[in-house]
Amino acid sequence: MKARVTVTLKNGVLDPQGKAIEGALRSLGVEGVASVRQGKVFDVELLPGVDAARAEAALKQACEKLLANTVVENYRVELAP
Amino acid sequence: MKARVTVTLKNGVLDPQGKAIEGALRSLGVEGVASVRQGKVFDVELLPGVDAARAEAALKQACEKLLANTVVENYRVELAP
Repeated sequence: MKARVTVTLKNGVLDPQGKAIEGALRSLGVEGVASVRQGKVFDVELLPGVDAARAEAALKQACEKLLANTVVENYRVELAP
Repeated sequence: MKARVTVTLKNGVLDPQGKAIEGALRSLGVEGVASVRQGKVFDVELLPGVDAARAEAALKQACEKLLANTVVENYRVELAP
């Protein structure tokens, strides 16, 4: 079983990296972009036979402890079969 | 209109950052994780009135030019209304 954890900055938190990408896209001539915000994605391969509900709980715990800074970041856990 | 661009390492490319996260999760007592690979996500806000097909083409061009290193990374563009 696989899972994808997406960590993104909360609204209102400044994102200088996103701003830099926005500027770079504009100077490269990519049109139609209003704003960019950068986040992280973790593709997690789970051990076979792990129960989905338990795996989701474990991943949320992992986000709280390690993967996301919950002061400024949101996280989302998606399980794929 | 919004779009999400996900950039992940190709299979077979070493991911020391992912390995470090894997080890850290194990030492934090998070169970059931076999492996972790880290990637990047870009949340792009598009200018209003931009045509979906054109926006997708522009974002693919952005990936090729700036957001992804296509030698070692795959990218995926998803448009959301």
